[in-house]
Amino acid sequence: MKFSFADRMNGVDESFIREILKVTEKPEIISFAGGLPNPGLFPVREISEAAQKVFTQKGESALQYATTEGYLPLREYIAARYREKQGLEIQADDILITNGSQQGIDLVAKVLLNKGDHVVIERPGYLGAIQAISLYEPEFHGISMDEDGIDIDKLAAVFKHHPLKLFYAVPTFQNPSGITYSREKRERVAEILKNSPTIILEDNPYGDLRFTGADLPLIKSRVQEQGILMGSFSKITVPGTRLGWICAAKEIMDKLKVAKQAADLHSNFLSQVIIHQYLEDNDLDEHIGKIKTKYHQQCQCMLSTIQQYFPQDVQCTQPEGGMFLWATLPEGMSSLELFEKAILENVAFVPGGAFYVDGGGERSFRLNFSNSNEEKIETGIKKLSEAIKKMML
Amino acid sequence: MKFSFADRMNGVDESFIREILKVTEKPEIISFAGGLPNPGLFPVREISEAAQKVFTQKGESALQYATTEGYLPLREYIAARYREKQGLEIQADDILITNGSQQGIDLVAKVLLNKGDHVVIERPGYLGAIQAISLYEPEFHGISMDEDGIDIDKLAAVFKHHPLKLFYAVPTFQNPSGITYSREKRERVAEILKNSPTIILEDNPYGDLRFTGADLPLIKSRVQEQGILMGSFSKITVPGTRLGWICAAKEIMDKLKVAKQAADLHSNFLSQVIIHQYLEDNDLDEHIGKIKTKYHQQCQCMLSTIQQYFPQDVQCTQPEGGMFLWATLPEGMSSLELFEKAILENVAFVPGGAFYVDGGGERSFRLNFSNSNEEKIETGIKKLSEAIKKMML
Repeated sequence: MKFSFADRMNGVDESFIREILKVTEKPEIISFAGGLPNPGLFPVREISEAAQKVFTQKGESALQYATTEGYLPLREYIAARYREKQGLEIQADDILITNGSQQGIDLVAKVLLNKGDHVVIERPGYLGAIQAISLYEPEFHGISMDEDGIDIDKLAAVFKHHPLKLFYAVPTFQNPSGITYSREKRERVAEILKNSPTIILEDNPYGDLRFTGADLPLIKSRVQEQGILMGSFSKITVPGTRLGWICAAKEIMDKLKVAKQAADLHSNFLSQVIIHQYLEDNDLDEHIGKIKTKYHQQCQCMLSTIQQYFPQDVQCTQPEGGMFLWATLPEGMSSLELFEKAILENVAFVPGGAFYVDGGGERSFRLNFSNSNEEKIETGIKKLSEAIKKMML
Repeated sequence: MKFSFADRMNGVDESFIREILKVTEKPEIISFAGGLPNPGLFPVREISEAAQKVFTQKGESALQYATTEGYLPLREYIAARYREKQGLEIQADDILITNGSQQGIDLVAKVLLNKGDHVVIERPGYLGAIQAISLYEPEFHGISMDEDGIDIDKLAAVFKHHPLKLFYAVPTFQNPSGITYSREKRERVAEILKNSPTIILEDNPYGDLRFTGADLPLIKSRVQEQGILMGSFSKITVPGTRLGWICAAKEIMDKLKVAKQAADLHSNFLSQVIIHQYLEDNDLDEHIGKIKTKYHQQCQCMLSTIQQYFPQDVQCTQPEGGMFLWATLPEGMSSLELFEKAILENVAFVPGGAFYVDGGGERSFRLNFSNSNEEKIETGIKKLSEAIKKMML
């Protein structure tokens, strides 16, 4: 039988990225395709100990239904961290716990967007945001990324000509490009959008993972209620518990809570209590330090192997943190074709096209360095460079 | 600043039910308002042991990102249980793990409904379904419930006059009424909707909790691909891990997976692996047996106290299972007014109006018996009967 689905499902590409990720799951493949943290760095023992404590001390309440907002001590921890690290005056009531920051994107789009509403997204942009926001049928404006962040002139032009409902960005160690907005670009974005009804959704899952350079202020620090922050425990503790958060002003938060309650009542409460216990009993910054050291090594390994083996005219971003870098082949070459060739050599990545709402990225591709050790990175990049060279013949 | 939200948020009642539940959280209140399982029955020790095993044997993989569909062994367990208990030919690929069955409702509505699409819901109906589906701006048709299930003539009339996209029902131990569809009503619903494009969403979180009477076949057993089943571990293990599932045919499942991935990538994986370990190492049916014995006692205690103390002309359903019963005051009385009076006596319930998409239920109210021991039930029902009698003066 053929059923009649909602119009919002029409434009959705069901298979491409899922097919890619399926191919890359084969054990013989060296995969730079996914966006997985290095599981060797997971604090398994510490989380296990936290879990035991929770089961012993408050098992019944941790296993019961809970409030939509999330576990209060966990929200207090997140708010205190914003105050301490960012100097932002954020309280627990400004925080809503979500299933990873991915759910945050879905909920923000749900409460904000009517069909045809205007939304800015980076090009390339985060694939998960494209997928989530697309289902609300907006009119996307893709704005290209320079080495120091989004193209400001283009943003100003879009803002001038369209009633912009939502600006979505990953300004720090962006997925997929690894690019970080400069201080000046952050200020310019805030200047352009400030005191308008445009919501600025600043997605910051990687911000803690800086290897080099100095921390930069959040765009949120230069705007008021229109700034929404999203964060995640996935990259700094573990991703399997799906714990992220939205930080938003009360007017928006009231709507988000309604949408969250309708979506799934509340996020996994047991994991909220366990992760909070872990955070209480351990030094998160010390743990993040270990992750940064390791990822920095892996990133440097990937960059130096690329420099040594890739043809000179393949360009590559130089991330100061995060989990990804972004390579671009010379004119006339196709990253999709390279993908097909590379898979034959048992190496995988994500071709760039998936990260564009409006076409583009045909020559580019995303490389993940967080989920492979240095040996695999060297082997994989060498194989990839051979595939590129063969294509150039 | 005033932001412009999506139209779908306009009709949403943000506060009423949240305010009620807030009032009922005060420790001095005997609350029959929530829908919480009895935490004294949670298998805390067993789940704790399962967790320890998981951390020891497969900590890294249980804490990593995972597939959108959910943990394969858990989906296999669910499918096998459908085959064993219901005789339905269901396989793991037919199952998608969700954040409780609440998320299942949201995802099904998301992939099916355009604004204005026609949806049948019971009156009274499950509040969480009303909240989730409302955000997709359907045209609801509320169809009243008799003692043996939905009013078949009304369903036939609605089906005849409207292109029905979705029929949502909780046919077994319904929330809020405690009513169970008779075998005949199940057959009639299937007959009316069969071989049409109407999706039948059969929500069955309480089906395992039968105290008396014989099990009845699912409506799904009489229809083909158009039947979607939803289930939940919340009422038979613990709710805090938010684990439920959708069981759907491939054509629908493909869309649901796209929507699930966009919504939050996947459900909490650690909890999926832990709950599966718990199910492997323990006898679920034995545990369900304990729950049923206890809830049956609590239900009987509530019913007999009602019979003894409530005025004769207050009507009450006689549930054969589940967690709720439904009381109706005599003509001219208001359950909302009773709520205000009862709160002064430190007893709470949910007034009936919240469960109707189209007005109604002014005389009725929902009583939960699963989350109070017999002493509290007796005390609370006595106080409630005094409040009713005072109102009748």
